[in-house]
Order: sequence, then structure tokens, then C-alpha cells
Amino acid sequence: MDLVIGVDIGGTKTKIGLVDETGHCHEKTFFRTREYPNLNEYLDKIKSTADELIEQLGKEVNIIGCGIGAPNASSKNGTIERASNLVWKGSVPLVEKLKERMPMPIRIMNDASAAALGEMLFGEAKNMTDFIVITLGTGFGAGIVANGRLIDGYDGFAGELGHVDMTIGDGRLTGLGVRGGLEAYVSATGLKRTIMFMQSKYLVESRFRDIAYNDLHGEDITQAAEEGDEIALKAFDYTARIMALALANFTAFTQPEAFILMGGLTNSGKWIMDPLEKYFNGFLLDVYKGKVKIIHSGMHGKDAAICGAAALIWEQQKKA
Amino acid sequence: MDLVIGVDIGGTKTKIGLVDETGHCHEKTFFRTREYPNLNEYLDKIKSTADELIEQLGKEVNIIGCGIGAPNASSKNGTIERASNLVWKGSVPLVEKLKERMPMPIRIMNDASAAALGEMLFGEAKNMTDFIVITLGTGFGAGIVANGRLIDGYDGFAGELGHVDMTIGDGRLTGLGVRGGLEAYVSATGLKRTIMFMQSKYLVESRFRDIAYNDLHGEDITQAAEEGDEIALKAFDYTARIMALALANFTAFTQPEAFILMGGLTNSGKWIMDPLEKYFNGFLLDVYKGKVKIIHSGMHGKDAAICGAAALIWEQQKKA
Repeated sequence: MDLVIGVDIGGTKTKIGLVDETGHCHEKTFFRTREYPNLNEYLDKIKSTADELIEQLGKEVNIIGCGIGAPNASSKNGTIERASNLVWKGSVPLVEKLKERMPMPIRIMNDASAAALGEMLFGEAKNMTDFIVITLGTGFGAGIVANGRLIDGYDGFAGELGHVDMTIGDGRLTGLGVRGGLEAYVSATGLKRTIMFMQSKYLVESRFRDIAYNDLHGEDITQAAEEGDEIALKAFDYTARIMALALANFTAFTQPEAFILMGGLTNSGKWIMDPLEKYFNGFLLDVYKGKVKIIHSGMHGKDAAICGAAALIWEQQKKA
Repeated sequence: MDLVIGVDIGGTKTKIGLVDETGHCHEKTFFRTREYPNLNEYLDKIKSTADELIEQLGKEVNIIGCGIGAPNASSKNGTIERASNLVWKGSVPLVEKLKERMPMPIRIMNDASAAALGEMLFGEAKNMTDFIVITLGTGFGAGIVANGRLIDGYDGFAGELGHVDMTIGDGRLTGLGVRGGLEAYVSATGLKRTIMFMQSKYLVESRFRDIAYNDLHGEDITQAAEEGDEIALKAFDYTARIMALALANFTAFTQPEAFILMGGLTNSGKWIMDPLEKYFNGFLLDVYKGKVKIIHSGMHGKDAAICGAAALIWEQQKKA
């Protein structure tokens, strides 16, 4: 059986799995990224973890390559550059150094772009040529496909839409210091910040008056909305409105057939989706109205991040 | 000699020319678009004007097709849809109706997208695979090229960046009713509106205190800046800052190698370019700094709009 090692490098966890050509993940595991601040030890850990998975599987397998999704990755250079939520600083030549340990085809890509390839090969975008995957986790990521091809950009850094400025240079700071940047509003973290903002703006009672920022979790906010907590409802409405405006703006750029959403914030279900749909149709230019879908990832329960990373290798296999 | 009829449909003028495969325009002329509110008479006028040009040229020529650039054109449908600055309403099946008069390959495209093809075939972008052409006339247009291909979008309406909202739903209205839309600030018209705004905001003396909005011309604003008029200087600075923020946002989308500028506002030269460069580098994410050029069109004096329209046919010729 041919398999690809899929690696998703996140600020908290590094997930690794073995993925076949249908997008099925046979074995998987994770370890904590921050326990390996030394890059060489981190890469050794990836190698040994992959070996363990192959052994666990206990079958004759043929590993055809390794695909990696990571924040601030440049597919063209094979590097991670100044990722604000990773411990290694500067430009990290990840592909080159991993090849020293694992001599096989290795590709790296921005995690959201990898997710877009995953949707195209295994998920909701099998028949689409123009779509955008939006990942709503700690940050806001985007993988853009147009004319049936992923947009890399001149230097491999296209799709950094979390740092698009929505406020003419005013507003909240993102992790990269962009004032008014989208992910400061629209992400799991952005929602938490908005819970704070709503408590500053209004005096209504709320369960959040007794919860500190660092104790706040996404599930609590969804739960509170279900119980009618006004601060939670206002926060979802505010988040959805800014997100709707951003998606309407993005539509004017590449006119996608669909936005495909994934990540923690989407677990809030109708509390984010209902106001999002309402505002989105209001913000869209007439020429786009009724033509742009907002859908959930088709990779749910399919280890979307690992499969997206593996898609980097499977895509090239299918082209060859 | 093989020639293409290039047609640029603007709200004021319709320009027509005969363009060879090097981008040279052999004969050209124009007529006033608004004198032909009846679509059939307008199309007859295009046909008769093209015939006159061919006769004027007085050589044996082989017309291989007709390329058209127009606002709100859909390349996929061959139509113009609800263009706010044209007299014909609704969806106009321009290609179909023109083919009845001129039986030859005919293609239509958003004027800024056509300009981008022109730069790729004949201008500054001959060796680029990722760039964005920005047209700064009455409105703000954009033609986006990524992976060496023009981005059309799902339905042919990609690149409507003049209607991207820069202010979270607050601010000036564009012609399509988008509040805070970019072209309400960054365009020849936007600059005029900003001259009004600066007179509202400040009390300083200015030559513009004696000039009504309808009597304002771009050249006057440039002239006033050269004479040190404070309202003019503030208006250029304000326009350049918003434009810089927009270009920095667009960079996060497709990471172009260059922005190529054309249109009336670029005639203001250093008064717009100097503050634009300064703010742009400030707004860019670190990962993009020093990698994105802002340059002028390579089609100056080459009838950029007509040649861009003709490029629609020459591009297909070269592919075949």
C-alpha cells in the first residue's frame, strides 16, 4: 500500500499521520511542539514518530513522500519564516533539514493552503476550480484556489488574509502587529477578545462577568449563547458581521464559488453561521449575490490538517 | 498583415484601434459612448468605425478577431452586467450581438483585466507570473494575474476591488452603493472628493476655496500641489495612505511581484507616488517587505486600453 506521511505543525501540537490516496488516515498521533525548542531534536522527533506509526500499522507499506502544513510556510523556499506562534526564530529551512533524516519527496506549505489542497483532493471542492478555504483557529488562515490552482504568490506567501487591515489602520493589533487586522476579530482568539469588548461596552449581566480572559473557552461562549447570554450573542453577531464583510471583500478579489470553513470557531454552529449568512448577503455586490456558497469543510472527522498536508504529495503523484 | 480590432468601452469614450502582434496600434479613433444610448445603433457604430479604420490603413490586412475591454464585463458570459457608468441597463449580451455584425472571434473582459493581459503580452509584465494591474480613472479597477494566468473567478467577475470595503461598513459610498468602498477614496473622482473633505476639515487658505466640485480637474490638483497648496498636499497624502493600505492588503491575498499602475491619477506623478511608497512599506507585513514593486504601466503612449483589449485575441492566438 502506498502512503504519505502528513505532518501538521501547530503552535501547540504537531500532528502526524499516514494517509492513503483516498484521504483515509490509517494511523495518527501527536506530540507537543513546544517540548522541542531545539530544531534538530524536533526534526528527529518527527522522524521517530513517523517510524513508530509505520511499525504500528504492521503492514508492508511504501512511503512515497512527506507533506507538511505549517504557519508562515513558503512552498517555494521550503521554509518557515518568522512564524509568530512557533518557537524557532527567523527563517527555518525545514524541508532541507528533514530530507537529511528522511530521504524522500518532502513539500511544505502554509497550513490553510494545504487544507485547500485537501478539500480539492478529498473533500468538498472536488469539482471546484475557484474556492477559498478559511481556517478559524487561534488565527485566521486562508488557502485560495483560482483557475483550478492554488495561489502561492511570487514568493510562496500568498493568502495571509488574517493580517488584512479592516479599519484603515485603526483597531485591534494582530500577533504580527497589524492594527485592525482581521484575525484580531475573526478567529477563536478574536471571539474571546470580543467578549471582553462587549463587557466594556455594555452593562448587562452575563456569566462572563465572573470569568477571566485566560479561563475563557470557545465552548463556554457557545453554551452561553444557547442560554441567551446577551454578551455572548452580541459577540457572535459582531464577529459574524466583520467576517461577512471580509468574505464579501474577498469575493471581489477572486470571485470564488464557495468559502469552505474549518477550525474551532466553526464549532459554534448556527451562532456564528446564521448572522454570517445574513450579513454576507447584505454586503455582497449585486453582481455576486446568490452565487457564493459558505459551507463547512468536507474533512470533518477525517483529520483535515493531516490529510491536507498529505495532499501536497498526493497532488503531485496524480499530476505525474 | 494580421491585425486585431481593439475596443475600449468607457463611460465617456469608446476607443477603437487596429493592433498588430507586437502591440503596435496602427490606426485608432474614438466616439462618444453616450451619443448611442440604443444598443443596436451603438454596435452598428463599432462595426462602421472598424471598417473605416481598415479602409484608412489602405493595406491588405487580415482581421483575426475583436477584443473588447469594458466595465463590469464577464468574460465567461460575454456580457456587460449592470455597469453603473454605462447607459444600457441590466445584462447586455455584447459579444453575441456584435458577432451578428462582425463574424469573427470576439472576446470581452473587464477593462482592467484586459489591461493586465496587455502588460503581459506587450508591456512591463512580460516575464512576470504574479502581478496586479491597477487602473485609477473615474473608478478603481484591478486585473489580477497569478500562476501566470488571469483570475476570472467562478463567473467572470473577479477583480472588482474598487468596491472592497476599507472601513467596516462606514465611510463614503461608491457608485454601486458600497459604503467605505475603495474607489470612493482612491481614483481620480476619489481625489476630488478628498479635496472637498479637506476643506471641511481644515480652515487653511487654498485655491480650491474658489473652485466648485464640478469645475475641479485632476491637473489643477497636481498644479496646486506644485505650488504648495496645503489642501492639495493633504489630499494627496490622504489618498496615498488609503491606497497604500489597500495594496498592502492585496499583497496578503496573491503576493504579487509588482503592482502596475495606470490611469488619470498616475499623471499626478510624485505627489501620489512618493507618499504611496512611504506608506506602502510601512503597511506591508514583514514577510513581504522589499519584495513588492510599484511601477508605472509599460503601455504609456501605446494606447494601453486599446492594446489591452486586443490582447484578448492575441493571447489566444499565441496559445494556439
